[in-house]
Amino acid sequence: MGDPAGIGPEIALKALASGEKPDGCRIIIIGDRDVLEKTGEQLSYLPPIHALQSLDTIIPGRINVVDLHAINPTDYVTGMAQANCGRAAFAYITKGIELALQDEVDAIVTNPINKEALSMAGIGYPGHTEILAEMTATKDFSMMFACENVCVVHVTTHVSLKQAIGMISQERVLSHTRLLNDALKNLGILKPRIAVSGLNPHAGENGLFGDEELLHIAPAISEAAAQGILASGPYPPDTVFMRAFKGEFDGVVSMLHDHGFVALKSRDFDSGVNITLGLPIIRTSVGHGTAFDKAGKGISSEKSLLAALHAALRMVKSKRRQ
Amino acid sequence: MGDPAGIGPEIALKALASGEKPDGCRIIIIGDRDVLEKTGEQLSYLPPIHALQSLDTIIPGRINVVDLHAINPTDYVTGMAQANCGRAAFAYITKGIELALQDEVDAIVTNPINKEALSMAGIGYPGHTEILAEMTATKDFSMMFACENVCVVHVTTHVSLKQAIGMISQERVLSHTRLLNDALKNLGILKPRIAVSGLNPHAGENGLFGDEELLHIAPAISEAAAQGILASGPYPPDTVFMRAFKGEFDGVVSMLHDHGFVALKSRDFDSGVNITLGLPIIRTSVGHGTAFDKAGKGISSEKSLLAALHAALRMVKSKRRQ
Repeated sequence: MGDPAGIGPEIALKALASGEKPDGCRIIIIGDRDVLEKTGEQLSYLPPIHALQSLDTIIPGRINVVDLHAINPTDYVTGMAQANCGRAAFAYITKGIELALQDEVDAIVTNPINKEALSMAGIGYPGHTEILAEMTATKDFSMMFACENVCVVHVTTHVSLKQAIGMISQERVLSHTRLLNDALKNLGILKPRIAVSGLNPHAGENGLFGDEELLHIAPAISEAAAQGILASGPYPPDTVFMRAFKGEFDGVVSMLHDHGFVALKSRDFDSGVNITLGLPIIRTSVGHGTAFDKAGKGISSEKSLLAALHAALRMVKSKRRQ
Repeated sequence: MGDPAGIGPEIALKALASGEKPDGCRIIIIGDRDVLEKTGEQLSYLPPIHALQSLDTIIPGRINVVDLHAINPTDYVTGMAQANCGRAAFAYITKGIELALQDEVDAIVTNPINKEALSMAGIGYPGHTEILAEMTATKDFSMMFACENVCVVHVTTHVSLKQAIGMISQERVLSHTRLLNDALKNLGILKPRIAVSGLNPHAGENGLFGDEELLHIAPAISEAAAQGILASGPYPPDTVFMRAFKGEFDGVVSMLHDHGFVALKSRDFDSGVNITLGLPIIRTSVGHGTAFDKAGKGISSEKSLLAALHAALRMVKSKRRQ
C-alpha cells in the first residue's frame, strides 16, 4: 500500500478499479483496511473491501486486503511525512517480503514510501531496495527501469561524472549487458535485442572524442555476442534511446545515470516501472515517490502501478515456464 | 531548397502548401523550378510555381521561386549523394546568404545539404554553418536547438567526456547563459526563464557526486542573476529538461552534448529547429539531414521546416521591434 499519507492508497484503489489491471492473477493489498476506506472517502468512492482472514479466502471482484491494523486513520494527516506512517509502511513491506519468501505470493509490487517518514520512525533504511536486500540476504542486486517497453540498466549511477568515466571497464559493461539480457528473458522475451550505448558524444566517433568505446565498450559487446547475447553497439547516446523507443531494441545498457534517466524522464515517466534484479523473489515497483503534494486530492495517476503489476505478472509467468 | 536529391524539395513544397505555414511573411524558395516540378510529379502534385524575375514580383498564393538553373532534373537521381547536387545546393545557399546580406530578404531558412555531395563537388565545407560563418565573416557563432518551445544551448559539444568536464568553467557557463538569454529575447521572449543544468548526477547533491556545480556552475548562475538574467539552477540533468518541456522554463543551458541531445531526441525531434547565433543575418534550419532513404517517396514530414520558418519569423519581428 505504501506510505498511508502518500498517493499509494489512492493509486492502489484506482489500479484495482481499472479496466487495465492485469488479467490472470489475484491481486491483494497488504496494508490497512481503514486507511483504504478513508482514501475512498477522499475520492468519493466506496471501495468493495474484503479483509482477508487467510490468503485462501480471496473473493474475485472485491478489493482483497491483508489488514495489518498498523495505523489508525485518525492518527495521521494526508500529505506529509509522519513517524507512524513510516512505521506502518515498513510493516506492509516486511509482511510482503515474508509472504513472498514463504511462497504465499508470487511477486510483490511496491507503492512509494518516504525516507524521511522511515527515519522519523527510527527505521534506518534509505528505501525499499535496502530493506529487500537485507531481508532476503541479497548482496548483488541492481535496478532496472522500464518505460514504454524499453528497459534500461546503468553501468554507473550515483557517482561524480569523473568517477563514472573511470568505472567504465570491459568487465563492468559485460556484466551489465548480461544482467539486462537475463532480466529481459525473465520478462518473457526469448531473445532480447540489447543496444549498448557509448559514453562519449557520437560514441567517440572512432576515437576522435574519447577512447572508452574502443578500449572497453566494443570489446565487451564482442564478448557478450560471443556468449550468445544479441548485443550491438556502441551507439551514440543521443539516438540509441530514441531507436529503442521506436521498437528497434528491447533494452539499452546506459553508461551514465544522465544518459538513461534523461531519456526515460523525457518520455512518459508516469508509466515508468522499477524492477530489482538479483533478488530471490520477484519485485517490481512504481517509478515515482509518495508525491505528498498530490496526496488526497484524487489527481494521481495509477499508470505506473498498473505497469508495475503487468511487469510482475510477466515475470511470474516466465518463471513458471522455466 | 537544400540538396535536390534529398527531402528538401519535397518538404519545401509540403510546407508551402500547409495550412500551418506562418502568416504575415512572404516566403520564397531559392532553388530550381524544374527540380520542384520533378518533385511535384513524384508527389502527384502540380505545384503552382511562379519563377521570380525580381523579388518585387512575388505573387501571393503561388510558390515563388528564385530559379538558379543550377541543375537539370534529368541529370541526377533522387536519394543519393551526387557531385552536381552538392554544387547546386551550394549555389542556393550562397545566393540566400547574398540576398540576406543585401537586406533583400529578412531571414534565411535552410533545408538539408549533404557533406558527401559537397565534398564530391570539390566544396570543402562540412556543413551550412561553416559556409555561413565564412561568407558573413563571423568568428564567434554558436548553435541553439529548439523543440516544443524549449531552447537548448550546450556548454560543451564535440569533445570527449573527459575533456568536457575540464571545460566547465564559471566563465563558459556564464557566456552560454548570456547567449541563450539574448537568443530567447531575439525570439520575442521579453524576460526569458533560463534553467542551468548541473553536470553530475542529481547536480552533484551538494558536493557528494562531484564539485563542478559548487565551484563553477552555481557561481555563474549568481553572476548571471546579478546581471538581470532570470537564470536558476543548477538543476539535476535528468529532470530539468522535463520541467522545461512542461513549461517551467523557456531555455536550458546544458553542460554536455548528451544531456541536451538525449532529451531533445527523446521528444518529437521531427519538429526540432536549429538556430545559428552570432551571425549578422537571421538564419534558422531544419533539425534533420537529407534523409536520402526517404527522398522521392512522399513520406517526409515538413514539421521541422515549418517550425524553422516560424522561428525565423519570430526573430524578424523581434528585430523590427528593437
